[in-house]
Amino acid sequence: MKLLIERGILLSAIQNVQRSVSTKTTIPVLSGIKITATHEGLQMTATDLETGIETHIPTHIEDQEHVQIMEEGSIVLTARYLFEIVRKLPHSQVELEVKQNYLTIIRSGSSEFNLHGLHAEEFPRLPQVSGDQIFSTSSLVLKEMIRQTVPAVSTEEIRPVLTGVVASMQQGELRFVATDSHRLAQRNARVEASADLAFDNVIIPGKSLSELSRLLPDQDSLVDVVIADNQILFRFGQTKFYSRLIDGQYPDTSRIIPASFKTHVHVATKSLLDAVERAALIARDNDNNVVRLNIKADQFEISSNSADVGKVTENIAADDFSGEDLLIACNAKYLIDALRVIESDKILIEFTGAMSPFLIKLPDNPDYIHLILPIRIY
Amino acid sequence: MKLLIERGILLSAIQNVQRSVSTKTTIPVLSGIKITATHEGLQMTATDLETGIETHIPTHIEDQEHVQIMEEGSIVLTARYLFEIVRKLPHSQVELEVKQNYLTIIRSGSSEFNLHGLHAEEFPRLPQVSGDQIFSTSSLVLKEMIRQTVPAVSTEEIRPVLTGVVASMQQGELRFVATDSHRLAQRNARVEASADLAFDNVIIPGKSLSELSRLLPDQDSLVDVVIADNQILFRFGQTKFYSRLIDGQYPDTSRIIPASFKTHVHVATKSLLDAVERAALIARDNDNNVVRLNIKADQFEISSNSADVGKVTENIAADDFSGEDLLIACNAKYLIDALRVIESDKILIEFTGAMSPFLIKLPDNPDYIHLILPIRIY
Repeated sequence: MKLLIERGILLSAIQNVQRSVSTKTTIPVLSGIKITATHEGLQMTATDLETGIETHIPTHIEDQEHVQIMEEGSIVLTARYLFEIVRKLPHSQVELEVKQNYLTIIRSGSSEFNLHGLHAEEFPRLPQVSGDQIFSTSSLVLKEMIRQTVPAVSTEEIRPVLTGVVASMQQGELRFVATDSHRLAQRNARVEASADLAFDNVIIPGKSLSELSRLLPDQDSLVDVVIADNQILFRFGQTKFYSRLIDGQYPDTSRIIPASFKTHVHVATKSLLDAVERAALIARDNDNNVVRLNIKADQFEISSNSADVGKVTENIAADDFSGEDLLIACNAKYLIDALRVIESDKILIEFTGAMSPFLIKLPDNPDYIHLILPIRIY
Repeated sequence: MKLLIERGILLSAIQNVQRSVSTKTTIPVLSGIKITATHEGLQMTATDLETGIETHIPTHIEDQEHVQIMEEGSIVLTARYLFEIVRKLPHSQVELEVKQNYLTIIRSGSSEFNLHGLHAEEFPRLPQVSGDQIFSTSSLVLKEMIRQTVPAVSTEEIRPVLTGVVASMQQGELRFVATDSHRLAQRNARVEASADLAFDNVIIPGKSLSELSRLLPDQDSLVDVVIADNQILFRFGQTKFYSRLIDGQYPDTSRIIPASFKTHVHVATKSLLDAVERAALIARDNDNNVVRLNIKADQFEISSNSADVGKVTENIAADDFSGEDLLIACNAKYLIDALRVIESDKILIEFTGAMSPFLIKLPDNPDYIHLILPIRIY
């Protein structure tokens, strides 16, 4: 293998794929990035067996030469060294050459590195994900769906299905749901799919979605999603992101969401978020991170107290109050997580009573809802 | 105690003094900041018994009212809570009021915190540092002296004196020296002092100097330095920084610095630093972080190798070579530490042989020198 490539292009490809490199592995080849040069260009691959990333650098993009392949071939190089070396190379051009015994020369300016590589054949092959469960969506919408549901994913391995976000599709509407059994986040979005595409119980690990979200470009672009038996593939630009799916049956969450409410109130998202964040400074020192909401026609009071530290009380403006007065308590973190991912200026909160789950909604948009279970305080 | 203060002013005073707050202490009052209100203004104090910081907020600065004192008094509040609460307060005005039993009310906008404070009498008094060993220097010069010597301070407690920077003064010239017995950094600067002020063996803890450096303002100003028996005081603006001095006799370093050399060479600081940083990527994986310099009339080669990872070789441009050819090795980190703190574009390196310490100097400025002991490689 022998090739010439621009340092910046090589570096950003390494940065992309290294998100899937195993950091804790006893299998040496998994701490590496596989580099494959063909006359079409350069392919870089990494996997930790849970996720996999493959990115392609074509020799030419719009008549501009990005990689010059002098000799085809492949090699595996330790990701950590490869990244730090390429990052610090002195010149904008980099030459990569594989000699005998997987010895790899990296030349740039007057600097020459000789690295011990590994045989590319030892590198695990990424799954062949194919199937007719295919749809497309905007990368920005996908990012927002991830951001709005992943915080509610369970971090406990006791019920593995709850460590994932469950995806379902019906009549062109994609739904993500996550719950750790104390709160539930649900987000719907219309996507580009054939009208008869329908699936449910596709459980994607929360960690994979977080990695995918960091990998997705910041400018809007189209992402193709392919779902197979135990794998999901996201394809965008020159990059493919694979994740294992979680086995098992996700609980039916539709019955958890209350249908009728006794108290309704509108508040400004930021006012409530700021007040709860202040209350959380005291709340984190009490037992359950408890914050209290005391809601009446003419007040929306947020408070918290801790025997050791002290207490905090604050009132914020509320609109359109209707229904019964209410004193309710919940984990401050759950409220903060739910409010932080809302872009809308105003939210509607609906309660059924001090001991029943309450719902955070967007006033005129049914696409996002967040359900929080209260904490008993008396 | 009762007062009104601008949130930004209060926050920056807290940020300043909290550098001296004990993070690991079993004495509750040391995790706090002492706040004292008098009709002159507000004073904030913190100490971990090793260092102490006192900052004053006068009621008026240039006719502008910054603090309004309604009632004098004092209280100790936990630094961590105080900082996070003030940082998140909703309004630009903050009211502080101490009630019975050290209960402290912090009001801002519609937010009201009640914090359990501690009795200010329990807070240790900062030392009264006075003496006639007083001089003044520019804050920027002092910052640079700290930056150029502290990296060479020993991190091992076996010889406590080496964990400090030793200061001495003669004929208006202040000298800082630090060595961990593998390398030595020395920096001189002219300061404002009476002609007959002379001292030596003033050993200031390296950690205290690092804290002081972060506290010193970025814009140039005058710092008064007062040295007493076992304390040093730095006074600038409305802030005082105290540090304990280290007991003991610092070794005589003047005899370590060679007086004659066999090889002289000039190189560009950045070229050498970049090359050594690249070599360090490989070097950190070998036993001693070893980088080799192979210097001849027509070459300055930097190289490093590691049995596991591979090797790296690089040549940089050198000028004005004179003397004997040389192959020498040293710890890459020591070279990087020495080169990073040099502002000058060019440096002069002088060698006495492969087994003798070598010297990094500025070409036309005797104020900074850095001595590094080589590593035997054969």
